[in-house]
Amino acid sequence: MGALRLPALTSIFTSSSVRSPLALKHRLRFPLRRPFSAQSTAEKAVATELGDGKAAKVVDKEKERVITPRSQDFNAWYLDVIANAELADYGPVRGTMVIRPYGYAIWEAIQDYLNVKFKETGHSNMYFPQFIPYSFIEKEASHVEGFSPELALVTVGGGKELEEKLVVRPTSETIVNHMFTQWIHSYRDLPLMINQWANVTRWEMRTKPFIRTLEFLWQEGHTAHAIAEEAEKEAMQMIDVYIKFAYEQAAIPVIAGRKSRVETFAGASRTYTIEAMMGDRKALQAGTSHNLGQNFSRAFNTQFTDENGQRQHVWQTSWAISTRFVGGIIMTHGDDAGLLLPPRLAPVQVVIVPIWKKDNEKMGVLTASSSVKETLQAAGIKVKIDDTDQRTPGWKFNFYEMKGVPLRIEIGPRDVSSGTVVISRRDVPGKQGKVFGISMEPSSLVAYVIDKLNEVQSTLLERATTFRDSNIVDVYSYNELKEAIAQGKWARGPWSASDEEELKVKEETGATIRCFPFEQPEGPKKCLMTGNSADEVAIFAKSY
Amino acid sequence: MGALRLPALTSIFTSSSVRSPLALKHRLRFPLRRPFSAQSTAEKAVATELGDGKAAKVVDKEKERVITPRSQDFNAWYLDVIANAELADYGPVRGTMVIRPYGYAIWEAIQDYLNVKFKETGHSNMYFPQFIPYSFIEKEASHVEGFSPELALVTVGGGKELEEKLVVRPTSETIVNHMFTQWIHSYRDLPLMINQWANVTRWEMRTKPFIRTLEFLWQEGHTAHAIAEEAEKEAMQMIDVYIKFAYEQAAIPVIAGRKSRVETFAGASRTYTIEAMMGDRKALQAGTSHNLGQNFSRAFNTQFTDENGQRQHVWQTSWAISTRFVGGIIMTHGDDAGLLLPPRLAPVQVVIVPIWKKDNEKMGVLTASSSVKETLQAAGIKVKIDDTDQRTPGWKFNFYEMKGVPLRIEIGPRDVSSGTVVISRRDVPGKQGKVFGISMEPSSLVAYVIDKLNEVQSTLLERATTFRDSNIVDVYSYNELKEAIAQGKWARGPWSASDEEELKVKEETGATIRCFPFEQPEGPKKCLMTGNSADEVAIFAKSY
Repeated sequence: MGALRLPALTSIFTSSSVRSPLALKHRLRFPLRRPFSAQSTAEKAVATELGDGKAAKVVDKEKERVITPRSQDFNAWYLDVIANAELADYGPVRGTMVIRPYGYAIWEAIQDYLNVKFKETGHSNMYFPQFIPYSFIEKEASHVEGFSPELALVTVGGGKELEEKLVVRPTSETIVNHMFTQWIHSYRDLPLMINQWANVTRWEMRTKPFIRTLEFLWQEGHTAHAIAEEAEKEAMQMIDVYIKFAYEQAAIPVIAGRKSRVETFAGASRTYTIEAMMGDRKALQAGTSHNLGQNFSRAFNTQFTDENGQRQHVWQTSWAISTRFVGGIIMTHGDDAGLLLPPRLAPVQVVIVPIWKKDNEKMGVLTASSSVKETLQAAGIKVKIDDTDQRTPGWKFNFYEMKGVPLRIEIGPRDVSSGTVVISRRDVPGKQGKVFGISMEPSSLVAYVIDKLNEVQSTLLERATTFRDSNIVDVYSYNELKEAIAQGKWARGPWSASDEEELKVKEETGATIRCFPFEQPEGPKKCLMTGNSADEVAIFAKSY
Repeated sequence: MGALRLPALTSIFTSSSVRSPLALKHRLRFPLRRPFSAQSTAEKAVATELGDGKAAKVVDKEKERVITPRSQDFNAWYLDVIANAELADYGPVRGTMVIRPYGYAIWEAIQDYLNVKFKETGHSNMYFPQFIPYSFIEKEASHVEGFSPELALVTVGGGKELEEKLVVRPTSETIVNHMFTQWIHSYRDLPLMINQWANVTRWEMRTKPFIRTLEFLWQEGHTAHAIAEEAEKEAMQMIDVYIKFAYEQAAIPVIAGRKSRVETFAGASRTYTIEAMMGDRKALQAGTSHNLGQNFSRAFNTQFTDENGQRQHVWQTSWAISTRFVGGIIMTHGDDAGLLLPPRLAPVQVVIVPIWKKDNEKMGVLTASSSVKETLQAAGIKVKIDDTDQRTPGWKFNFYEMKGVPLRIEIGPRDVSSGTVVISRRDVPGKQGKVFGISMEPSSLVAYVIDKLNEVQSTLLERATTFRDSNIVDVYSYNELKEAIAQGKWARGPWSASDEEELKVKEETGATIRCFPFEQPEGPKKCLMTGNSADEVAIFAKSY
């Protein structure tokens, strides 16, 4: 074991000059604590590399934060936001990600909501081992075809070459079925409905923080049913949970629908998906729910004895949402100033910035600020106070705007004497979003803040919906489809053509069928590709 | 990749005759649903193998559950409880464990409590990747020595042999330090206090469900501080959190103290531990908190600039509690009837069993039962109602006793007419633990139930404390120590001898120093081994 050495990685981690760009930028532009004078040549070099000399980057007065404008380079903007808002950092192994406290708190908010919904709909949490015998993966034919290129394999354990190579779970249908065969005996054991919160590993070649990483966190639900209709109902129920979550919590107006055969999960009979339009108009598959039919139960022989004493294979579903969703939130709502978080998922919903100039003002301002904080906290609002005197109020305004905090409360000496506060909305920049003279009186302040948080929440959803709808084009021919995609838009058109023709569209335009949306226009339709009659419209888009 | 086949594992999983004993027993003795007539030869064989013909096993009337008496074979009892109470099952890979919903719910209760305490004490959750470059593990000399025999290595990713072999995290000090070097610049960045909930992998040879598994779940806290005293204070603060948790939530009277040099965590300067006495009087290390000193910060060069502009290495801590604790709860409180859960961690605190004979009684009994359920639920009590008519009340009594539910409420037709219920305590068997005529009136019922839950909670702690104290012997010579250990007890005696002498004790008696307890007797002491003066007593015991 001692002989196992990693020259390539070692050299990366001991030489500070060979770092991944995000880590480098992050290290050099740590926003809170580095004085202006410490800006290094390396930092300037990175800024130049990512943006360009003319760029109107968001740089605060002390020149510590640099966010590439979103319109200029969406990808650079995305990475800048993640680094500056301290959401995540690259791990030492290529394609891995460290989720930092602020980013993890968004994931915790997602977990808190979904965990309750899963339990309300009758699912229990449990935990399956992450090491799966390779032979399991091979049992379901399309599953192995889909996953084998992305597997990480453990071949050495306890200093010895293993007889049996182990797969680090890319998803758990196989091991779940192996265990289900031991727990399911008769129809009385069904439905069996479970969920696990876990890490999964997929050896992706092109990675991007949150969106596609070698290891990510997710929940995976797995259910087994006695009859086909029940499994279908469950798959639909769970995509519904995801739709509600996306709209109501994340303010993301996803389009839900069924995947095409080509895009269906490896091993599923039907895959339902929620597709979100990012700020660059690329689609993000943000959650999926699979009706697995009897594909895995036949492969693993997961059977039960029905009421007539006959042995039957169970009908199954699986469904998942992952840390990718955090990336979706960033890319849906963020703007040139940085992150913009929907209040219901924001780790900090309100930041209080006390403002004073003279020492004799400080005490009163801080006392009033603490009291406002306690008032809001007692009402269940997630509130933070930044009373450090190492930073100016202006610096703090920019910083928490960049962090996407939905509301800011400013309290100065004049506010203290008038018993009022100033409240600014993150989603309405400048003076327009600023209201003066809001009473500090607890019950009215709480009501006002909750009202504003709700307004921000619904404004984000409205904006994203308007953006989405203005970027979906109805197309009736392949030429129109190509034109829409070339303009960066989503194309919606009738489709009944073959898998081969679907793959041709991908090859020629870069776009794939994101889904056959549940909401379908009425009336007869003709396939945009073949002119044959079509039952449904499909949505085509480039995607992450 | 397609050529990678696992003959050994495949044969295990396709042949039902070659199963691990727990899985086999579990499968054959599934408690809820299997009719008596289905008891197979294999099942009898297993029963015989584990117990013996004369055993007074706990078998309910329908002969579906068999729990080896605890006094007869503690290990068989433990495995029987885990299988019958559906806490866990063996995974397909040797030494791995599936945590089933009932077992996982205990872990969730542990998480819920600790997560709040960690946040209250200033820690933020985050997530580090589980793949660690092998070179990282090698950087801290004693760390690699301690962990390299237990590592699982990923050597293939995406179908290709990796240039860099990766360690599946056994613990995260190395990767944490790698990231800390990027986040810590000056004293203003300190203290840095984080925690993660994660899975970890250690290639253990001798495994046991919950207690020692190849993969387990835990939380690992990691902190960095500017001064040594602060790190020491933090390490002590966190062992205090664990002590309170053990006493107040798990009703386990742990003995807390400092590990000997020999038993200190690989890479730590000092390890604090909580040691619990199991029902067989073996010790279980149930949680640890390490003062890491500058061992990792020197190895990884984790430095900060102090207030005088000098570069310094940070002082660190790490601390962890794992799913092993669930095993500790089982082995502390369980008895011949099965599991016995402390109310504060019980997934079901109260089970309601409606009792009726005639059809015309059923409606009234079920209505009253639901109403009692709602009353208790509204008061925040975790309550379950079992109104299936496929099982007799007697069967249900036994079943929920075996599952360790602290209180049972029985409601029959006579109770309905008198507006009362019958309440039985799990910790007081038979009629003694049964109280009739408790009013159904919501406020008095809630008060009564909460009162009884608290009584069960404190009774469990008292019992475990009495058991513990009657099994610790003060010893003053090596002979006395040997005698105490031979009797299966813990030996407490003055110790100032060498590491070699400590190892000799282990070799000759099988006992190790569990800790130098924080609570020390006053007055001068002489080392039980050497007769030299000793500052402290140590506790010796055989352990898991």
